Amino acid sequence: MKVKISRKEHFNAAHRLFNADWSDEENARVFGKCSNPNYHGHNYEVIVSLTGEPSKETGYVFDMKALSDLIRENVLKKFDHQNLNLDTEFFKELNPTAENIAIVIWRILRQKIDSNLELKITLYETERNVVEYPAS
Amino acid sequence: MKVKISRKEHFNAAHRLFNADWSDEENARVFGKCSNPNYHGHNYEVIVSLTGEPSKETGYVFDMKALSDLIRENVLKKFDHQNLNLDTEFFKELNPTAENIAIVIWRILRQKIDSNLELKITLYETERNVVEYPAS
Amino acid sequence: MKVKISRKEHFNAAHRLFNADWSDEENARVFGKCSNPNYHGHNYEVIVSLTGEPSKETGYVFDMKALSDLIRENVLKKFDHQNLNLDTEFFKELNPTAENIAIVIWRILRQKIDSNLELKITLYETERNVVEYPAS
Amino acid sequence: MKVKISRKEHFNAAHRLFNADWSDEENARVFGKCSNPNYHGHNYEVIVSLTGEPSKETGYVFDMKALSDLIRENVLKKFDHQNLNLDTEFFKELNPTAENIAIVIWRILRQKIDSNLELKITLYETERNVVEYPAS
Amino acid sequence: MKVKISRKEHFNAAHRLFNADWSDEENARVFGKCSNPNYHGHNYEVIVSLTGEPSKETGYVFDMKALSDLIRENVLKKFDHQNLNLDTEFFKELNPTAENIAIVIWRILRQKIDSNLELKITLYETERNVVEYPAS
Amino acid sequence: MKVKISRKEHFNAAHRLFNADWSDEENARVFGKCSNPNYHGHNYEVIVSLTGEPSKETGYVFDMKALSDLIRENVLKKFDHQNLNLDTEFFKELNPTAENIAIVIWRILRQKIDSNLELKITLYETERNVVEYPAS
Repeated sequence: MKVKISRKEHFNAAHRLFNADWSDEENARVFGKCSNPNYHGHNYEVIVSLTGEPSKETGYVFDMKALSDLIRENVLKKFDHQNLNLDTEFFKELNPTAENIAIVIWRILRQKIDSNLELKITLYETERNVVEYPAS
Repeated sequence: MKVKISRKEHFNAAHRLFNADWSDEENARVFGKCSNPNYHGHNYEVIVSLTGEPSKETGYVFDMKALSDLIRENVLKKFDHQNLNLDTEFFKELNPTAENIAIVIWRILRQKIDSNLELKITLYETERNVVEYPAS
Repeated sequence: MKVKISRKEHFNAAHRLFNADWSDEENARVFGKCSNPNYHGHNYEVIVSLTGEPSKETGYVFDMKALSDLIRENVLKKFDHQNLNLDTEFFKELNPTAENIAIVIWRILRQKIDSNLELKITLYETERNVVEYPAS
Repeated sequence: MKVKISRKEHFNAAHRLFNADWSDEENARVFGKCSNPNYHGHNYEVIVSLTGEPSKETGYVFDMKALSDLIRENVLKKFDHQNLNLDTEFFKELNPTAENIAIVIWRILRQKIDSNLELKITLYETERNVVEYPAS
Repeated sequence: MKVKISRKEHFNAAHRLFNADWSDEENARVFGKCSNPNYHGHNYEVIVSLTGEPSKETGYVFDMKALSDLIRENVLKKFDHQNLNLDTEFFKELNPTAENIAIVIWRILRQKIDSNLELKITLYETERNVVEYPAS
Repeated sequence: MKVKISRKEHFNAAHRLFNADWSDEENARVFGKCSNPNYHGHNYEVIVSLTGEPSKETGYVFDMKALSDLIRENVLKKFDHQNLNLDTEFFKELNPTAENIAIVIWRILRQKIDSNLELKITLYETERNVVEYPAS
């Protein structure tokens, strides 16, 4: 009798798609405008989903307010109003594609959430572009 | 060749999170503002999903108009503009968390939908808080 | 060279439409389900708009963060997770229709905002029902 | 370490639900207003999802810009501002229900996308009616 | 102390942009894909706004339920699931652009609404294209 | 018989709020996280509104497709995937607040649109923060 609960939060950040092993020309060819050396940015919407059995006592899988606080403390504080390439430890060498940002957020939160709860990250980079990790 | 179809409906209701086995202090400590004895409320969005093979004759898994009518008759009539704790039979002793409301709606509709169709309920309590039952 | 800026916030509340000068039958006849004595509720979206000239120094008409804080302190603290009829001072005798809630919010904030800025309130009671005060 | 990425595009089209094996009366009885002989129409939102492992080099499962181009070239060019029954090859004999449109789009794109990527189509016919193929 | 209230409804329709005084080539040149002789269609969102003083007795400018019924009876019954060019009396000779549809809806409803209330129509043809009549 | 038409487009950009006459400390004090020297970014939604009389011949105030092309050519080409402070001529000395971005877009488009049409810019910086120029 498992239920999946999800909480949506958002952050605004600058980034640049970039592979340090490649020349500037190669980066421009593959990533186009997304590799602008002066950066561009997005309003990211991040949805954190937890799957488990509701507590008999509270009726909660997880307290939404506590989940919101957990995301703010561990994700938004690190990413909101930041330059993902320059200001965070995660994308010094990892390309900050939506796919990689979702995986990084999953890894951060996986350590903070009890292992009996499944964890999934959904990340909207724009209203039309979205990624989910893990995929199912 | 299964297709999943979904129909969204909404209802407005008051509720209060409350565990009758606990003192008022304990309820306030665990549920915070959500346990206000005078109630608060939400615009709930309920999405009912059915999975099955489209009919060769109609191209439908299920007629969306018939699904909308089924939800209105069996769910909205019971919940819309009601106090979930006081006015419905379901939450006299069950805490009306989003998780429990979704499970209750699933149980109501499961009896009305042919068993060869999988049934899933998605319930938005706010734009940022959503639950799904069953989880997958 | 006036610019209008707007900030959206939300609160969840219970309410009941009710005219104390009328019988219960009259209230039920006029307000229908909205007069349920046990209350129902909504996710209200409130948009506060200020019109004025951007500051030469900051480029702001008003700091959006400061506007958000002002709304939270003066409106959300009073209305969020409350029963508008029972828990607030404003609707003891005033019917909490969307129109009246918007007027009350305008009066609260008008005292907190410099008079050289025009103030307007837009209130969504549901996604399909919205009111604006003043009208233009 | 699979990630699911999704790209949303839209097209506007006319259609009519119709089973050529049935009389007009039978079509009207089963499909109601949706079988109007003069057609009606929708703003369709189509979401194309691909699941696979992000490339070590690019951090992409699939370039979103390339996915957008692929959908425009293979789906939108055929469907946008068209009458699905009259102007496309797909619905001469197949009833253009949302279910069938999703299956047709899946078949078109399945030939264009490398088979190591899972493909899923989500189609909104209205904001309240949506179908997904395959179902999971 | 005027308040503006708005109610959103929707209808789905087929249409074709067409000026009967022009050749087919001229229509195609000016209206492009929108003049497809086999029609295309949209999910139209229509927002009806009324401005006036809230009643002292009810707190309403106008009962939203009554406004919804009025729109359904006078607009949706005529336009929903119809071909605007062929099935309605309004666009036999008038081109069904979003501008003209909004003006027609305004004229229909102006006769049904007390003249002490200002009336405004907002019509979304797509999420990105919207018209308002009158303009202010 | 004037009608207002509006077209929505979007662009993604990096920016930093910054007054060059102030010390870094003063900028940090006034603009907080928005003055991060490494920039942050947004998905901007820009809505361009034109008010005028519909043409008798076309039923258009302005062709939406032509308006979209005009915005893409004159605004999106300059701003999309750019760093507003570094990559554009407009914000070398002007602080790129939402207010100032809207005024700049208005000035760019005012030169391209016939003066018998009123022009208004609405700019969403986030879903919750929006500015309009001119204000009415």
